[in-house]
Amino acid sequence: MKNASEIARELVSRRLAACVNMFPISSIYRWNEQIAEQNVIAMFVKTDSSCLNEIIEVVKSLHTYDLPAIEFWEIEGEQEYLDWVHVNSS
Amino acid sequence: MKNASEIARELVSRRLAACVNMFPISSIYRWNEQIAEQNVIAMFVKTDSSCLNEIIEVVKSLHTYDLPAIEFWEIEGEQEYLDWVHVNSS
Amino acid sequence: MKNASEIARELVSRRLAACVNMFPISSIYRWNEQIAEQNVIAMFVKTDSSCLNEIIEVVKSLHTYDLPAIEFWEIEGEQEYLDWVHVNSS
Repeated sequence: MKNASEIARELVSRRLAACVNMFPISSIYRWNEQIAEQNVIAMFVKTDSSCLNEIIEVVKSLHTYDLPAIEFWEIEGEQEYLDWVHVNSS
Repeated sequence: MKNASEIARELVSRRLAACVNMFPISSIYRWNEQIAEQNVIAMFVKTDSSCLNEIIEVVKSLHTYDLPAIEFWEIEGEQEYLDWVHVNSS
Repeated sequence: MKNASEIARELVSRRLAACVNMFPISSIYRWNEQIAEQNVIAMFVKTDSSCLNEIIEVVKSLHTYDLPAIEFWEIEGEQEYLDWVHVNSS
């Protein structure tokens, strides 16, 4: 959790995200043609799309993995909450 | 978890959701220009889009937070499951 | 977790998914006109859209539930990671 928490705090303090959620997951994946399993931390980063490139740079520079799994998708939401995300991440 | 469970049961019993998933997360966010961290419950609400406005009202009225983070996005899915969601939430 | 882990390993070893994340959730839903609550495992399956039909078949055949909740949505992502998912799941 330490690395995830560090990344989350960096994103929020630099106003690259309004909020970051973290939770532990078990991950099963293919690596070097073998099946690996690891306990890691998943993060949901709530942000304005204008921050995406900078977030990717921060995650890549702070993450201990060679290839962090960075995915994003657009959401809709309750308007007052979306406004809060926008104000706090752009 | 008590508040989350109460909201989930309200949504399912009023047929505003076919299913609600809950899991504990750690949330880091900006509030009053400071960085706050809290353990909270995330919820995935499986519903028909026709229920969205009513769900927002229920969550806002039952939630203990001033600004609950309400997000939504469209999904596709296995047809029999989507039919079940539709029948149980509209 | 046993059933979820079995499904995850089957998907990754058959190259139907590059990676599968698993985490425990509490699920509240309507079943036979009653409200049920169960502790289950949620899975995020990272895959190429070309694998979807085969994934659905595998999940249905291995899952212990009559109606597993199979949802999917498109994501964007960091390019090197997307390439890795594509290479490992198609």
